[in-house]
Amino acid sequence: MALSELNDRLRFVLVRTSHSGNIGSAARAMRTMGFDQLTLVAPHRFPDPEATALAAGADDVLGKASIQDDLVAGLTGTTFALGLSARRRGVNIPELDPREGVAQALAAARRGEQVALVFGNERTGLENDELSRCHAMIRIPSVDDFSSLNLSQAVQVVAYELRSALLADEAKDVARVPEAVLDPDEVPADAEQLERFFTHLGQTLDDIEFHKGRSPVTIMLKLRKLFLRARPELRELRILHGILADAQRMAEIAHKKD
Amino acid sequence: MALSELNDRLRFVLVRTSHSGNIGSAARAMRTMGFDQLTLVAPHRFPDPEATALAAGADDVLGKASIQDDLVAGLTGTTFALGLSARRRGVNIPELDPREGVAQALAAARRGEQVALVFGNERTGLENDELSRCHAMIRIPSVDDFSSLNLSQAVQVVAYELRSALLADEAKDVARVPEAVLDPDEVPADAEQLERFFTHLGQTLDDIEFHKGRSPVTIMLKLRKLFLRARPELRELRILHGILADAQRMAEIAHKKD
Repeated sequence: MALSELNDRLRFVLVRTSHSGNIGSAARAMRTMGFDQLTLVAPHRFPDPEATALAAGADDVLGKASIQDDLVAGLTGTTFALGLSARRRGVNIPELDPREGVAQALAAARRGEQVALVFGNERTGLENDELSRCHAMIRIPSVDDFSSLNLSQAVQVVAYELRSALLADEAKDVARVPEAVLDPDEVPADAEQLERFFTHLGQTLDDIEFHKGRSPVTIMLKLRKLFLRARPELRELRILHGILADAQRMAEIAHKKD
Repeated sequence: MALSELNDRLRFVLVRTSHSGNIGSAARAMRTMGFDQLTLVAPHRFPDPEATALAAGADDVLGKASIQDDLVAGLTGTTFALGLSARRRGVNIPELDPREGVAQALAAARRGEQVALVFGNERTGLENDELSRCHAMIRIPSVDDFSSLNLSQAVQVVAYELRSALLADEAKDVARVPEAVLDPDEVPADAEQLERFFTHLGQTLDDIEFHKGRSPVTIMLKLRKLFLRARPELRELRILHGILADAQRMAEIAHKKD
Protein backbone atom coordinates (compact mmCIF):
# COMPACT_ATOMS: atom_id res chain seq x y z
CA MET A 1 0.00 0.00 0.00
CA ALA A 2 1.36 3.40 -0.94
CA LEU A 3 2.44 5.62 1.93
CA SER A 4 0.19 8.36 0.54
CA GLU A 5 -2.87 6.16 0.99
CA LEU A 6 -1.98 5.56 4.62
CA ASN A 7 -1.36 9.28 5.09
CA ASP A 8 -4.96 9.87 3.99
CA ARG A 9 -6.13 7.65 6.85
CA LEU A 10 -3.99 9.15 9.60
CA ARG A 11 -5.34 12.37 11.07
CA PHE A 12 -3.41 14.53 13.54
CA VAL A 13 -5.92 16.30 15.78
CA LEU A 14 -4.70 19.24 17.90
CA VAL A 15 -7.22 20.18 20.58
CA ARG A 16 -7.54 23.72 22.03
CA THR A 17 -3.99 24.69 21.10
CA SER A 18 -3.02 27.93 22.88
CA HIS A 19 0.04 29.02 20.91
CA SER A 20 -0.37 29.25 17.17
CA GLY A 21 3.40 28.85 16.81
CA ASN A 22 2.97 25.30 18.06
CA ILE A 23 0.45 24.64 15.29
CA GLY A 24 3.07 25.72 12.76
CA SER A 25 5.81 23.62 14.36
CA ALA A 26 3.48 20.63 14.48
CA ALA A 27 2.67 21.04 10.78
CA ARG A 28 6.38 21.11 9.98
CA ALA A 29 7.01 18.05 12.16
CA MET A 30 4.23 16.11 10.39
CA ARG A 31 5.42 17.21 6.97
CA THR A 32 9.02 16.07 7.52
CA MET A 33 7.67 12.59 8.15
CA GLY A 34 5.29 12.61 5.17
CA PHE A 35 1.96 13.39 6.85
CA ASP A 36 -0.39 16.25 6.07
CA GLN A 37 -3.88 15.53 7.51
CA LEU A 38 -4.27 18.13 10.25
CA THR A 39 -7.44 18.87 12.21
CA LEU A 40 -7.58 21.79 14.63
CA VAL A 41 -10.24 21.65 17.32
CA ALA A 42 -11.06 25.09 18.77
CA PRO A 43 -7.59 26.62 18.29
CA HIS A 44 -7.15 29.84 20.27
CA ARG A 45 -5.94 31.69 17.19
CA PHE A 46 -5.80 30.41 13.63
CA PRO A 47 -4.84 31.29 10.97
CA ASP A 48 -1.98 33.31 12.41
CA PRO A 49 1.35 34.62 11.04
CA GLU A 50 3.20 32.89 13.89
CA ALA A 51 1.87 29.51 12.75
CA THR A 52 2.90 30.21 9.16
CA ALA A 53 6.39 31.33 10.22
CA LEU A 54 7.06 28.20 12.27
CA ALA A 55 5.63 25.88 9.63
CA ALA A 56 8.83 26.80 7.74
CA GLY A 57 7.40 25.91 4.35
CA ALA A 58 4.78 23.38 5.43
CA ASP A 59 2.10 25.97 4.60
CA ASP A 60 0.19 23.43 2.52
CA VAL A 61 -0.53 21.45 5.70
CA LEU A 62 -1.88 24.57 7.43
CA GLY A 63 -3.79 25.71 4.33
CA LYS A 64 -5.88 22.57 4.13
CA ALA A 65 -6.24 21.99 7.88
CA SER A 66 -9.78 21.19 8.99
CA ILE A 67 -11.06 23.43 11.78
CA GLN A 68 -13.74 22.12 14.13
CA ASP A 69 -15.56 23.35 17.23
CA ASP A 70 -15.20 20.27 19.40
CA LEU A 71 -13.51 16.92 19.52
CA VAL A 72 -16.64 15.00 18.52
CA ALA A 73 -16.67 16.97 15.26
CA GLY A 74 -12.90 16.58 14.94
CA LEU A 75 -13.26 12.79 15.11
CA THR A 76 -16.01 12.59 12.48
CA GLY A 77 -15.41 9.60 10.22
CA THR A 78 -12.69 8.08 12.38
CA THR A 79 -13.06 4.63 13.91
CA PHE A 80 -9.92 4.50 16.03
CA ALA A 81 -8.58 7.32 18.17
CA LEU A 82 -5.38 7.43 20.21
CA GLY A 83 -4.97 10.25 22.74
CA LEU A 84 -1.55 11.51 23.80
CA SER A 85 -1.21 11.94 27.53
CA ALA A 86 1.76 12.70 29.76
CA ARG A 87 0.05 11.63 32.94
CA ARG A 88 -1.71 8.54 34.10
CA ARG A 89 -5.34 9.56 34.40
CA GLY A 90 -8.56 8.67 36.07
CA VAL A 91 -9.77 7.50 32.69
CA ASN A 92 -8.94 3.85 32.66
CA ILE A 93 -8.10 3.07 29.02
CA PRO A 94 -5.14 1.08 27.75
CA GLU A 95 -1.85 2.94 27.96
CA LEU A 96 0.58 2.29 25.12
CA ASP A 97 4.07 3.50 24.42
CA PRO A 98 4.50 5.29 21.09
CA ARG A 99 5.77 2.20 19.30
CA GLU A 100 2.84 0.02 20.37
CA GLY A 101 0.37 2.82 19.68
CA VAL A 102 1.73 3.41 16.22
CA ALA A 103 1.61 -0.32 15.43
CA GLN A 104 -2.08 -0.38 16.34
CA ALA A 105 -2.78 2.81 14.40
CA LEU A 106 -1.12 1.44 11.28
CA ALA A 107 -2.87 -1.92 11.56
CA ALA A 108 -6.21 -0.09 11.67
CA ALA A 109 -5.28 2.20 8.75
CA ARG A 110 -4.22 -0.81 6.69
CA ARG A 111 -7.66 -2.34 7.26
CA GLY A 112 -9.12 0.82 5.72
CA GLU A 113 -10.05 2.58 8.96
CA GLN A 114 -9.68 6.30 9.59
CA VAL A 115 -7.39 6.86 12.56
CA ALA A 116 -7.00 9.93 14.78
CA LEU A 117 -3.97 10.90 16.85
CA VAL A 118 -5.22 13.38 19.39
CA PHE A 119 -3.02 15.99 21.14
CA GLY A 120 -4.38 18.18 23.95
CA ASN A 121 -3.78 21.74 25.07
CA GLU A 122 -0.16 22.70 25.89
CA ARG A 123 -0.73 23.28 29.57
CA THR A 124 -3.66 21.09 30.48
CA GLY A 125 -3.37 18.22 28.01
CA LEU A 126 -6.52 16.32 27.11
CA GLU A 127 -9.48 16.66 29.45
CA ASN A 128 -10.93 13.42 30.79
CA ASP A 129 -14.04 13.73 28.61
CA GLU A 130 -11.76 14.12 25.58
CA LEU A 131 -9.63 11.13 26.55
CA SER A 132 -12.81 9.14 27.11
CA ARG A 133 -13.49 9.46 23.38
CA CYS A 134 -10.22 7.68 22.63
CA HIS A 135 -9.71 3.93 22.39
CA ALA A 136 -6.30 4.04 23.98
CA MET A 137 -3.72 6.45 25.28
CA ILE A 138 -0.17 6.93 24.05
CA ARG A 139 2.29 7.95 26.73
CA ILE A 140 5.67 9.15 25.54
CA PRO A 141 8.04 7.72 28.15
CA SER A 142 9.30 10.97 29.69
CA VAL A 143 10.96 11.16 33.10
CA ASP A 144 8.71 11.56 36.12
CA ASP A 145 10.17 14.84 37.39
CA PHE A 146 10.01 16.66 34.04
CA SER A 147 7.37 14.94 32.03
CA SER A 148 5.93 17.59 29.75
CA LEU A 149 7.11 17.63 26.16
CA ASN A 150 6.41 20.66 24.03
CA LEU A 151 3.32 19.95 21.90
CA SER A 152 5.14 19.94 18.58
CA GLN A 153 7.83 17.68 20.04
CA ALA A 154 5.17 15.14 20.92
CA VAL A 155 3.81 15.39 17.37
CA GLN A 156 7.35 14.88 16.06
CA VAL A 157 7.91 11.75 18.15
CA VAL A 158 4.64 10.17 17.00
CA ALA A 159 5.14 11.15 13.35
CA TYR A 160 8.69 9.81 13.50
CA GLU A 161 7.52 6.49 14.97
CA LEU A 162 4.85 6.23 12.27
CA ARG A 163 7.35 6.80 9.51
CA SER A 164 9.91 4.43 11.03
CA ALA A 165 7.28 1.70 11.22
CA LEU A 166 6.15 2.35 7.65
CA LEU A 167 9.70 2.17 6.35
CA ALA A 168 10.39 -1.01 8.31
CA ASP A 169 7.23 -2.60 6.87
CA GLU A 170 8.11 -1.45 3.39
CA ALA A 171 11.48 -3.09 3.78
CA LYS A 172 9.63 -6.29 4.68
CA ASP A 173 7.40 -5.88 1.59
CA VAL A 174 4.25 -5.76 3.66
CA ALA A 175 3.13 -2.91 1.44
CA ARG A 176 2.27 -5.20 -1.45
CA VAL A 177 -0.30 -7.31 0.39
CA PRO A 178 -3.59 -6.69 -1.42
CA GLU A 179 -6.05 -4.68 0.58
CA ALA A 180 -9.22 -6.35 1.81
CA VAL A 181 -12.46 -4.90 0.51
CA LEU A 182 -14.39 -4.07 3.62
CA ASP A 183 -18.12 -4.48 4.12
CA PRO A 184 -19.18 -1.16 5.69
CA ASP A 185 -21.18 -3.15 8.24
CA GLU A 186 -18.06 -4.96 9.31
CA VAL A 187 -15.83 -2.03 10.13
CA PRO A 188 -16.03 -0.55 13.61
CA ALA A 189 -18.59 2.21 13.92
CA ASP A 190 -17.13 5.70 13.56
CA ALA A 191 -16.97 8.37 16.25
CA GLU A 192 -20.26 10.00 15.26
CA GLN A 193 -22.17 6.72 15.23
CA LEU A 194 -20.75 5.86 18.63
CA GLU A 195 -21.70 9.28 20.01
CA ARG A 196 -25.29 8.71 18.84
CA PHE A 197 -25.28 5.39 20.63
CA PHE A 198 -23.93 6.89 23.88
CA THR A 199 -26.55 9.63 23.72
CA HIS A 200 -29.28 7.04 23.26
CA LEU A 201 -27.85 4.94 26.08
CA GLY A 202 -27.77 7.95 28.42
CA GLN A 203 -31.41 8.81 27.63
CA THR A 204 -32.48 5.24 28.22
CA LEU A 205 -30.75 5.08 31.59
CA ASP A 206 -32.72 8.21 32.57
CA ASP A 207 -35.95 6.73 31.27
CA ILE A 208 -35.58 3.47 33.20
CA GLU A 209 -34.55 5.44 36.31
CA PHE A 210 -31.19 3.80 36.54
CA HIS A 211 -29.20 6.54 38.22
CA LYS A 212 -31.00 6.85 41.59
CA GLY A 213 -28.62 9.35 43.13
CA ARG A 214 -25.50 7.92 41.53
CA SER A 215 -23.52 10.18 39.22
CA PRO A 216 -24.64 9.70 35.61
CA VAL A 217 -21.24 11.10 34.54
CA THR A 218 -19.20 8.38 36.24
CA ILE A 219 -21.45 5.60 35.02
CA MET A 220 -21.42 6.95 31.47
CA LEU A 221 -17.62 7.17 31.51
CA LYS A 222 -17.43 3.54 32.60
CA LEU A 223 -19.88 2.40 29.94
CA ARG A 224 -18.09 4.48 27.33
CA LYS A 225 -14.82 2.76 28.20
CA LEU A 226 -16.43 -0.67 27.96
CA PHE A 227 -17.98 -0.06 24.55
CA LEU A 228 -14.94 1.74 23.12
CA ARG A 229 -12.94 -1.31 24.06
CA ALA A 230 -15.38 -3.55 22.20
CA ARG A 231 -15.20 -1.33 19.07
CA PRO A 232 -18.76 -2.25 17.96
CA GLU A 233 -19.54 -2.65 14.30
CA LEU A 234 -22.40 -0.69 12.79
CA ARG A 235 -24.72 -3.71 12.72
CA GLU A 236 -23.96 -4.40 16.36
CA LEU A 237 -24.81 -0.80 17.21
CA ARG A 238 -28.13 -1.31 15.40
CA ILE A 239 -28.96 -4.22 17.69
CA LEU A 240 -28.02 -2.18 20.76
CA HIS A 241 -30.15 0.76 19.57
CA GLY A 242 -33.03 -1.67 19.13
CA ILE A 243 -32.67 -2.97 22.67
CA LEU A 244 -32.55 0.57 24.06
CA ALA A 245 -35.65 1.57 22.08
CA ASP A 246 -37.59 -1.37 23.52
CA ALA A 247 -36.48 -0.57 27.06
CA GLN A 248 -37.61 3.03 26.51
CA ARG A 249 -40.96 1.83 25.19
CA MET A 250 -41.49 -0.23 28.34
CA ALA A 251 -40.51 2.73 30.53
CA GLU A 252 -42.95 4.96 28.69
CA ILE A 253 -45.83 2.55 29.25
CA ALA A 254 -44.80 2.11 32.90
CA HIS A 255 -44.72 5.87 33.48
CA LYS A 256 -48.04 6.49 31.74
CA LYS A 257 -49.69 3.86 33.85
CA ASP A 258 -48.10 5.09 37.09
CA MET B 1 23.48 0.12 35.27
CA ALA B 2 21.67 3.17 36.61
CA LEU B 3 20.25 5.52 34.01
CA SER B 4 22.04 8.42 35.72
CA GLU B 5 25.42 6.79 35.09
CA LEU B 6 24.61 6.46 31.40
CA ASN B 7 23.39 10.06 31.30
CA ASP B 8 26.84 11.14 32.49
CA ARG B 9 28.35 9.43 29.46
CA LEU B 10 25.97 10.83 26.83
CA ARG B 11 26.75 14.36 25.70
CA PHE B 12 24.51 16.40 23.40
CA VAL B 13 26.66 18.79 21.37
CA LEU B 14 25.00 21.68 19.52
CA VAL B 15 27.30 23.28 16.97
CA ARG B 16 27.06 26.95 15.85
CA THR B 17 23.38 27.23 16.81
CA SER B 18 21.87 30.42 15.34
CA HIS B 19 18.67 30.78 17.36
CA SER B 20 19.06 30.70 21.10
CA GLY B 21 15.40 29.65 21.40
CA ASN B 22 16.43 26.36 19.82
CA ILE B 23 19.04 25.87 22.53
CA GLY B 24 16.29 26.24 25.14
CA SER B 25 13.93 23.88 23.32
CA ALA B 26 16.73 21.35 22.92
CA ALA B 27 17.47 21.52 26.67
CA ARG B 28 13.81 20.89 27.43
CA ALA B 29 13.68 17.99 24.97
CA MET B 30 16.74 16.38 26.57
CA ARG B 31 15.41 16.93 30.07
CA THR B 32 12.05 15.26 29.36
CA MET B 33 13.96 12.12 28.42
CA GLY B 34 16.30 12.23 31.41
CA PHE B 35 19.46 13.73 29.87
CA ASP B 36 21.30 16.88 30.95
CA GLN B 37 24.84 16.89 29.51
CA LEU B 38 24.79 19.77 27.03
CA THR B 39 27.77 21.22 25.19
CA LEU B 40 27.43 24.35 23.07
CA VAL B 41 30.05 24.91 20.38
CA ALA B 42 30.29 28.56 19.28
CA PRO B 43 26.63 29.44 19.85
CA HIS B 44 25.65 32.73 18.19
CA ARG B 45 24.19 34.05 21.42
CA PHE B 46 24.28 32.42 24.83
CA PRO B 47 23.17 32.85 27.54
CA ASP B 48 20.01 34.50 26.26
CA PRO B 49 16.51 35.09 27.73
CA GLU B 50 14.95 33.36 24.69
CA ALA B 51 16.85 30.17 25.53
CA THR B 52 15.73 30.32 29.15
CA ALA B 53 12.10 30.95 28.16
CA LEU B 54 11.96 27.97 25.82
CA ALA B 55 13.76 25.68 28.25
CA ALA B 56 10.48 25.86 30.18
CA GLY B 57 12.04 24.88 33.48
CA ALA B 58 15.04 22.95 32.20
CA ASP B 59 17.26 25.85 33.30
CA ASP B 60 19.54 23.47 35.16
CA VAL B 61 20.59 21.97 31.83
CA LEU B 62 21.40 25.43 30.42
CA GLY B 63 23.08 26.55 33.63
CA LYS B 64 25.68 23.82 33.58
CA ALA B 65 26.10 23.66 29.79
CA SER B 66 29.72 23.58 28.65
CA ILE B 67 30.59 26.26 26.10
CA GLN B 68 33.43 25.64 23.66
CA ASP B 69 34.98 27.45 20.72
CA ASP B 70 35.11 24.59 18.26
CA LEU B 71 33.99 21.01 17.82
CA VAL B 72 37.39 19.56 18.65
CA ALA B 73 37.15 21.18 22.08
CA GLY B 74 33.48 20.15 22.33
CA LEU B 75 34.44 16.51 21.81
CA THR B 76 37.18 16.49 24.47
CA GLY B 77 37.05 13.26 26.44
CA THR B 78 34.66 11.50 24.09
CA THR B 79 35.59 8.30 22.30
CA PHE B 80 32.55 7.88 20.10
CA ALA B 81 30.74 10.64 18.21
CA LEU B 82 27.59 10.40 16.11
CA GLY B 83 26.72 13.33 13.84
CA LEU B 84 23.14 14.11 12.87
CA SER B 85 22.67 14.83 9.20
CA ALA B 86 19.61 15.28 7.01
CA ARG B 87 21.48 14.79 3.78
CA ARG B 88 23.79 12.17 2.38
CA ARG B 89 27.19 13.78 2.27
CA GLY B 90 30.48 13.52 0.55
CA VAL B 91 31.94 12.35 3.84
CA ASN B 92 32.02 8.61 3.64
CA ILE B 93 31.10 7.39 7.12
CA PRO B 94 28.44 4.82 8.06
CA GLU B 95 24.89 6.16 7.92
CA LEU B 96 22.58 4.83 10.63
CA ASP B 97 18.93 5.36 11.38
CA PRO B 98 18.22 6.73 14.87
CA ARG B 99 17.48 3.33 16.37
CA GLU B 100 20.72 1.78 15.11
CA GLY B 101 22.68 4.88 16.08
CA VAL B 102 21.27 4.88 19.57
CA ALA B 103 22.02 1.17 20.00
CA GLN B 104 25.66 1.82 19.14
CA ALA B 105 25.81 4.88 21.40
CA LEU B 106 24.43 2.93 24.35
CA ALA B 107 26.71 -0.03 23.73
CA ALA B 108 29.68 2.34 23.87
CA ALA B 109 28.40 4.12 27.00
CA ARG B 110 27.89 0.77 28.73
CA ARG B 111 31.50 -0.08 28.04
CA GLY B 112 32.39 3.12 29.92
CA GLU B 113 33.01 5.33 26.89
CA GLN B 114 32.04 8.98 26.63
CA VAL B 115 29.67 9.44 23.70
CA ALA B 116 28.77 12.61 21.78
CA LEU B 117 25.64 13.24 19.76
CA VAL B 118 26.44 16.15 17.48
CA PHE B 119 23.86 18.50 15.95
CA GLY B 120 24.82 21.15 13.37
CA ASN B 121 23.64 24.66 12.58
CA GLU B 122 19.91 25.07 11.79
CA ARG B 123 20.39 26.09 8.20
CA THR B 124 23.63 24.51 7.11
CA GLY B 125 23.81 21.40 9.29
CA LEU B 126 27.21 19.97 10.08
CA GLU B 127 30.08 21.00 7.82
CA ASN B 128 32.05 18.21 6.20
CA ASP B 129 35.04 18.80 8.48
CA GLU B 130 32.74 18.53 11.49
CA LEU B 131 31.09 15.34 10.22
CA SER B 132 34.53 13.93 9.54
CA ARG B 133 35.17 14.05 13.32
CA CYS B 134 32.24 11.69 13.85
CA HIS B 135 32.39 7.91 13.80
CA ALA B 136 29.05 7.57 12.10
CA MET B 137 26.13 9.64 10.94
CA ILE B 138 22.55 9.40 12.15
CA ARG B 139 19.95 10.25 9.53
CA ILE B 140 16.40 10.77 10.79
CA PRO B 141 14.26 9.23 8.02
CA SER B 142 12.48 12.37 6.79
CA VAL B 143 10.77 12.59 3.40
CA ASP B 144 12.90 13.65 0.45
CA ASP B 145 10.90 16.75 -0.49
CA PHE B 146 10.79 18.23 3.02
CA SER B 147 13.71 16.79 4.86
CA SER B 148 14.72 19.41 7.41
CA LEU B 149 13.60 18.91 10.99
CA ASN B 150 13.79 21.79 13.40
CA LEU B 151 16.96 21.41 15.47
CA SER B 152 15.19 20.78 18.77
CA GLN B 153 12.89 18.26 17.08
CA ALA B 154 15.95 16.29 15.97
CA VAL B 155 17.26 16.43 19.55
CA GLN B 156 13.86 15.20 20.77
CA VAL B 157 13.82 12.24 18.39
CA VAL B 158 17.32 11.12 19.39
CA ALA B 159 16.68 11.63 23.13
CA TYR B 160 13.39 9.73 22.81
CA GLU B 161 15.10 6.82 21.05
CA LEU B 162 17.78 6.74 23.74
CA ARG B 163 15.24 6.62 26.52
CA SER B 164 13.09 4.01 24.76
CA ALA B 165 16.14 1.78 24.34
CA LEU B 166 17.15 2.26 27.98
CA LEU B 167 13.67 1.40 29.20
CA ALA B 168 13.46 -1.66 26.96
CA ASP B 169 16.78 -2.89 28.35
CA GLU B 170 15.60 -2.21 31.89
CA ALA B 171 12.38 -4.14 31.23
CA LYS B 172 14.41 -7.18 30.23
CA ASP B 173 16.25 -7.09 33.54
CA VAL B 174 13.01 -6.46 35.38
CA ALA B 175 11.29 -9.61 34.11
CA ARG B 176 12.02 -11.27 37.42
CA VAL B 177 10.14 -8.76 39.56
CA PRO B 178 7.24 -10.50 41.35
CA GLU B 179 3.87 -10.01 39.74
CA ALA B 180 1.62 -7.26 41.06
CA VAL B 181 -1.34 -8.41 43.11
CA LEU B 182 -4.38 -7.67 41.00
CA ASP B 183 -7.61 -6.21 42.30
CA PRO B 184 -10.23 -8.88 41.41
CA ASP B 185 -12.46 -6.05 40.17
CA GLU B 186 -9.89 -5.10 37.58
CA VAL B 187 -9.39 -8.44 35.93
CA PRO B 188 -11.74 -9.51 33.14
CA ALA B 189 -14.76 -11.42 34.46
CA ASP B 190 -14.50 -15.19 34.30
CA ALA B 191 -16.58 -17.49 32.12
CA GLU B 192 -19.17 -18.23 34.81
CA GLN B 193 -19.72 -14.56 35.59
CA LEU B 194 -20.11 -13.85 31.89
CA GLU B 195 -22.62 -16.68 31.50
CA ARG B 196 -24.72 -15.24 34.30
CA PHE B 197 -24.67 -11.92 32.49
CA PHE B 198 -25.73 -13.47 29.17
CA THR B 199 -28.56 -15.33 30.87
CA HIS B 200 -29.76 -12.09 32.46
CA LEU B 201 -29.43 -10.27 29.13
CA GLY B 202 -31.48 -12.96 27.35
CA GLN B 203 -34.26 -12.80 29.97
CA THR B 204 -34.36 -9.03 29.74
CA LEU B 205 -34.67 -9.11 25.96
CA ASP B 206 -37.68 -11.42 26.38
CA ASP B 207 -39.18 -9.16 29.03
CA ILE B 208 -38.92 -6.00 26.94
CA GLU B 209 -40.27 -7.89 23.93
CA PHE B 210 -37.19 -7.33 21.85
CA HIS B 211 -37.29 -10.40 19.63
CA LYS B 212 -40.55 -9.91 17.72
CA GLY B 213 -40.19 -12.90 15.43
CA ARG B 214 -36.43 -12.60 15.02
CA SER B 215 -34.32 -15.50 16.18
CA PRO B 216 -33.18 -14.98 19.78
CA VAL B 217 -30.35 -17.40 19.05
CA THR B 218 -28.74 -15.31 16.32
CA ILE B 219 -29.08 -12.07 18.26
CA MET B 220 -27.65 -13.63 21.40
CA LEU B 221 -24.68 -14.97 19.43
CA LYS B 222 -23.98 -11.50 18.08
CA LEU B 223 -24.25 -9.87 21.50
CA ARG B 224 -22.07 -12.57 22.99
CA LYS B 225 -19.38 -11.87 20.42
CA LEU B 226 -19.53 -8.13 21.15
CA PHE B 227 -19.22 -8.51 24.92
CA LEU B 228 -16.56 -11.21 24.73
CA ARG B 229 -14.49 -8.83 22.64
CA ALA B 230 -14.83 -6.14 25.31
CA ARG B 231 -13.68 -8.54 28.06
CA PRO B 232 -15.74 -6.78 30.78
CA GLU B 233 -14.38 -6.50 34.28
CA LEU B 234 -16.51 -7.69 37.18
CA ARG B 235 -17.45 -4.16 38.23
CA GLU B 236 -18.52 -3.38 34.67
CA LEU B 237 -20.70 -6.48 34.68
CA ARG B 238 -22.30 -5.21 37.87
CA ILE B 239 -23.28 -1.97 36.12
CA LEU B 240 -24.72 -3.92 33.19
CA HIS B 241 -26.69 -6.20 35.54
CA GLY B 242 -28.07 -3.06 37.20
CA ILE B 243 -29.23 -1.64 33.88
CA LEU B 244 -30.90 -4.91 32.92
CA ALA B 245 -32.66 -5.12 36.29
CA ASP B 246 -34.10 -1.63 35.82
CA ALA B 247 -35.26 -2.40 32.30
CA GLN B 248 -36.97 -5.55 33.66
CA ARG B 249 -38.62 -3.54 36.42
CA MET B 250 -40.07 -1.15 33.82
CA ALA B 251 -41.29 -4.06 31.71
CA GLU B 252 -42.94 -5.64 34.73
CA ILE B 253 -44.86 -2.45 35.53
CA ALA B 254 -45.79 -2.02 31.87
CA HIS B 255 -47.10 -5.60 31.63
CA LYS B 256 -49.04 -5.42 34.88
CA LYS B 257 -50.77 -2.32 33.72
CA ASP B 258 -51.56 -3.67 30.24
